[in-house]
Amino acid sequence: MQQAIAVLDSGVGGLTVVKEVLRQLPHEKILYFGDTARTPYGPREAEEVITFTREIVDYLVQFNPKMIVIACNTATAVALEDIRTRVNVPTIGVINPGARAAIGRTKTGVVGVIGTEGTIKSRAYEWALKRQSPSVTVISQACSSFVPLVEDGNFHSEETYQTVAESLSSLQNTTMDCLILGCTHYPFLADSISKVMGSEVTLINSAEETAREISTILQENNELAGIDVEPVHQFFCSGDPRKFQEIAQAWLEEQIQLFPVVWQVSSIGV
Amino acid sequence: MQQAIAVLDSGVGGLTVVKEVLRQLPHEKILYFGDTARTPYGPREAEEVITFTREIVDYLVQFNPKMIVIACNTATAVALEDIRTRVNVPTIGVINPGARAAIGRTKTGVVGVIGTEGTIKSRAYEWALKRQSPSVTVISQACSSFVPLVEDGNFHSEETYQTVAESLSSLQNTTMDCLILGCTHYPFLADSISKVMGSEVTLINSAEETAREISTILQENNELAGIDVEPVHQFFCSGDPRKFQEIAQAWLEEQIQLFPVVWQVSSIGV
Repeated sequence: MQQAIAVLDSGVGGLTVVKEVLRQLPHEKILYFGDTARTPYGPREAEEVITFTREIVDYLVQFNPKMIVIACNTATAVALEDIRTRVNVPTIGVINPGARAAIGRTKTGVVGVIGTEGTIKSRAYEWALKRQSPSVTVISQACSSFVPLVEDGNFHSEETYQTVAESLSSLQNTTMDCLILGCTHYPFLADSISKVMGSEVTLINSAEETAREISTILQENNELAGIDVEPVHQFFCSGDPRKFQEIAQAWLEEQIQLFPVVWQVSSIGV
Repeated sequence: MQQAIAVLDSGVGGLTVVKEVLRQLPHEKILYFGDTARTPYGPREAEEVITFTREIVDYLVQFNPKMIVIACNTATAVALEDIRTRVNVPTIGVINPGARAAIGRTKTGVVGVIGTEGTIKSRAYEWALKRQSPSVTVISQACSSFVPLVEDGNFHSEETYQTVAESLSSLQNTTMDCLILGCTHYPFLADSISKVMGSEVTLINSAEETAREISTILQENNELAGIDVEPVHQFFCSGDPRKFQEIAQAWLEEQIQLFPVVWQVSSIGV
């Protein structure tokens, strides 16, 4: 039985990470858990998010994964260290990969971060950036209106562009040259964000960077899947399975040939 | 005593990796070994390169490094696996990081690789790229005239541009959107290469990508240096120390406040 990469999120945002893993590591098997019944995690207390994350991890470790990926910025910010001390499986989040990519690419030393209010308030990106490079200047901005736009499928309208422009106005006219999309929903709005920020600002997509770090760590541990493997992925969600299946299939369709299997997990209290 | 990251190269090319490590990981201590008495490695037989690499690694492990980085494409291509089986220290080369970055960034699935004749002949990049993503198309080109240009300090002349344009002519008019600089000397020529290839082609700098993977692995192993550490770096070379010191200081000057200490290592036969 092929050991999987277990990916978890508060809902569907972590599918942006899955899509990048499928693209960059096409032989790896994915186990995905979207806690759609309890989304969003952003406004919840840290203790609650830690409890929820532990429950999902306890569920996923039954399948003996070779790696666990917390593909949710809020859960990474508050629960990553807790999970790392609890399980004996390499576990990464989405914050360090994004921070590391920004440090690698910035020339001016001024890095922007946008995310949910929970993520920005936690200052997790600021800490991760300064942990690596104390001299970097970090400009953060919570963009609470972005997730609803994405959930409505409203990616490219004039209204979306105006909302994005307004939210990002405080980030303009700086020497920032990298902007971290610190929420797994934000890559859906990359066109508008890029148009507002201009071509001199590189957008750092946490999903892309996280997939790359998964690849680095698996290779270092000599645990990459063989190139003759045709993986069968499994998707779990705690909420309405039809809605999840619809979004997952629309988002991943071009990447995998089979429809994802959607399971309703009743063992997790809502 | 702070455990160092040991970086080795056939000569001065690996200093591009050192510069990126100093920038991305300013608290890490570097031990560098440039085998300037026996450079270049490109035209040598694989067995000889393996022997030389073993000798340098045996020298460096005396200092109890926490990681070994083979910052030479030729040595990575032929000696990395050998070294990994010989030493009990995490060891990485410069090929997988560059390949992984290209897989992460390409949208067209067509990736170019330029390097020395030895590196291109080894097909190490092609193998690394296809190991990760079998569907990628790889276009390779040996550029034997580039290293002499760099060693002459001839980075920005019209002659350099013409040489670069001629060497890269076979790579133009393709759907390639990423070009891996598969030699640690080539970042010095990035301006000309970029001008020839056009703005649609992203240049992948192995030095930058390798530094980032060093960061990923050290963090995963919980071995990053503390942020209160002021590291003292040490540089070794097997050839003329004055010439090495001059190049290293010119290249790293803006990154470190002290001059590198250059030692002549007489224990390694030339």
